Amino acid sequence: MGMVTQGKRGVGGGESGGFGKRIMELAERLAQWSEVSDGLTCTYLSPAHRAVAAEIHNWMRQAGLITEIDAVGNVIGRYAADEAAARTLIMASHYDTVRNGGKYDGRLGILTALVLVEHLKRLGRKLPFHLDVIAFSEEEGVRFASSFLGSRAVAGRFDRKLLKRRDADGVTLEAAMRDADLDPAKIPTLARRREELMGYLEVHIEQGPVLLEEGLPVGIVNTIAGSIRSMVTITGTAGHAGTVPMARRHDAAAAAAELVLYVERRCAQVPMLVGTVGQLAVPNGAINIIPGCCELTLDIRAGDDATRDAAMSDVVAEIGRIAARRGVKIESKEVQRTAAVRCSPRLQSLLADAVARVGVTPRHLPSGAGHDAMMFDGLTDVAMLFVRCGNGGVSHSPREIITAEDADIAARVMLDAVLRLAATS
Amino acid sequence: MGMVTQGKRGVGGGESGGFGKRIMELAERLAQWSEVSDGLTCTYLSPAHRAVAAEIHNWMRQAGLITEIDAVGNVIGRYAADEAAARTLIMASHYDTVRNGGKYDGRLGILTALVLVEHLKRLGRKLPFHLDVIAFSEEEGVRFASSFLGSRAVAGRFDRKLLKRRDADGVTLEAAMRDADLDPAKIPTLARRREELMGYLEVHIEQGPVLLEEGLPVGIVNTIAGSIRSMVTITGTAGHAGTVPMARRHDAAAAAAELVLYVERRCAQVPMLVGTVGQLAVPNGAINIIPGCCELTLDIRAGDDATRDAAMSDVVAEIGRIAARRGVKIESKEVQRTAAVRCSPRLQSLLADAVARVGVTPRHLPSGAGHDAMMFDGLTDVAMLFVRCGNGGVSHSPREIITAEDADIAARVMLDAVLRLAATS
Repeated sequence: MGMVTQGKRGVGGGESGGFGKRIMELAERLAQWSEVSDGLTCTYLSPAHRAVAAEIHNWMRQAGLITEIDAVGNVIGRYAADEAAARTLIMASHYDTVRNGGKYDGRLGILTALVLVEHLKRLGRKLPFHLDVIAFSEEEGVRFASSFLGSRAVAGRFDRKLLKRRDADGVTLEAAMRDADLDPAKIPTLARRREELMGYLEVHIEQGPVLLEEGLPVGIVNTIAGSIRSMVTITGTAGHAGTVPMARRHDAAAAAAELVLYVERRCAQVPMLVGTVGQLAVPNGAINIIPGCCELTLDIRAGDDATRDAAMSDVVAEIGRIAARRGVKIESKEVQRTAAVRCSPRLQSLLADAVARVGVTPRHLPSGAGHDAMMFDGLTDVAMLFVRCGNGGVSHSPREIITAEDADIAARVMLDAVLRLAATS
Repeated sequence: MGMVTQGKRGVGGGESGGFGKRIMELAERLAQWSEVSDGLTCTYLSPAHRAVAAEIHNWMRQAGLITEIDAVGNVIGRYAADEAAARTLIMASHYDTVRNGGKYDGRLGILTALVLVEHLKRLGRKLPFHLDVIAFSEEEGVRFASSFLGSRAVAGRFDRKLLKRRDADGVTLEAAMRDADLDPAKIPTLARRREELMGYLEVHIEQGPVLLEEGLPVGIVNTIAGSIRSMVTITGTAGHAGTVPMARRHDAAAAAAELVLYVERRCAQVPMLVGTVGQLAVPNGAINIIPGCCELTLDIRAGDDATRDAAMSDVVAEIGRIAARRGVKIESKEVQRTAAVRCSPRLQSLLADAVARVGVTPRHLPSGAGHDAMMFDGLTDVAMLFVRCGNGGVSHSPREIITAEDADIAARVMLDAVLRLAATS
């Protein structure tokens, strides 16, 4: 208990908001590097992306950490234990962004970990484990349509086939890496081993409205949703908009409309289930032609795979009914399936206790979005702390915001959790 | 009655299918001129279009007609009455096509009229009125997004402002016309006067399945539908597909889906009403983003304007309900409104009698598509004969077909009607 008390007192800036203020400042500084002048875009190995890596690397060095930029572009700062053979706690998130994204998605987790070790270093407070702050180079999958490149490598899940992927300009991932002085041949050496790890913690902006609406600054993630993604093509019969009676039509867009509303209705039946038709288009449609084709995407997620699979199974059945009733052909092609991840009960308790100690009611909530943490599932214990997302919970947008107060609370919670872990390990 | 009998006998190829055979042959020959090698595209003043005009002009000359290609590119062949002061019956349709269109849409009406006057000329059968066969240069509105250019000019409805319209390459209509040696300044002189006209007859492929399904080779158009066209933009709230619970979404595509199905349901309530959402798109949609915007088009038509307006009014009311219920903004902008045209009861009777005399049950049916005939509404009596469309009624497609037998019946019906008109005028 003493150490926890020390942790709370020792925050220094903690009670006066010092952690939060510094996190916000550093996030602003990183946001100055962008591929575009009118917003924040920072995709894998762009000049902006490499500048951000250099900046984070510099801050880690200034904090006195043992640093490196690894073969996949991850920036790693180790706050080393005295004993070299000690196990490692990873605190991490990603520094790339979506196109026209926000300042906190990913970066908040890196900066929270950074200010935490800066604080420990200032205090000279040693830990009985190595604390590795990792800024993953790629999570969003924007440039090479392949997400989690950074965390995949560290979790030993990087498939060499990915190196052949090409960006929109035809540049392979391998060529882009070499061009950035990264050596793809070294990626396998980045993989951490199960026995050397003691856990993985990630702070992330919620990217949704739950904490905001419940008036809570932070929450503990219990599950990270698994998803199924499909591309759906509906083929009906094109026809003249003026000459084909309604009863004789096989309108692909009307069939799509039924499917969109079914997905919405079905997924609304279960609280932790979501279903989205994000892309919807009538290719070469004309104002006076009955749609002969309609293409759409399907993304269904739930905190547990059984719930998600049941929904998908119902959607597939409905697709069959719509096709039969309307005399259209509906083809659905699954393009991604990821399993849901349950966060470690032990680390959830650790975070919940820390949340309670800063005076906040612990709220466990699922993550609908995927996160780097998923890559470590099965390798080590995983937990995440969500931070309230302002502006109605909008993310992947320049309108994404958090408050310095909430960032400060998140940093204090993580500091408390780390010190508690130190006391009990 | 004697003349009608003569008409039926005099067809020569009539009973042995000569009209139909020649119409099919001529349609094939015109279809050889195209802007593309793998289908039929013939838009206003393209080289293919000008070649088709020259070919038709040549055939008219060979038939002994008084010919001209007018200032807007219409090809006109007059089968002149002895008396110069006689009134004029127009038989017409258009020779341009949509992109990747069919061989009969428009051209069937020109060729039916042509074989009819070839026949009269062969017989030396004079009419007490001038019969003007007109091949209108433009009806589909493909190149300059402005339809009925040919018939507008002849009907005196050509607005000089149209000359400023530009095609996809930025060429103005005026420049395109001058480049083809057409003089836009002469367009006003093409307008026919009410007192010189005795009627307007147009044969056209049905472009729908009604005659096909009822086993009828031809039908008499009673009304040509008027239409309202609108562009609809729905603005919802974009969001992360994984993190925003279903109940908290303002999904623009889901709102669009409700509208699509409402239009379908509402228009199915009335037999002669049709409603189409031909274009539907989530701009910049992504598989994992809740649609913040959805754009769609609306095309509502009916044989009478009151029916159409009532449907549109209900659609507008539903738009308001959807917007309110879903918390989205829906903006609708009307881009076109044309009044329905009632075909002349007198000319409908004339055609119905002629249909009956070739042994076919007269079937009156509405036209959902717009036609050149509409331009003559209010100027002279208008009537149309539809010819059965094969392949399920598909048009605006390379799959558009008719049979030589049906073309033959159409030609015999029109010959009979023209001779009957000659006998009674």
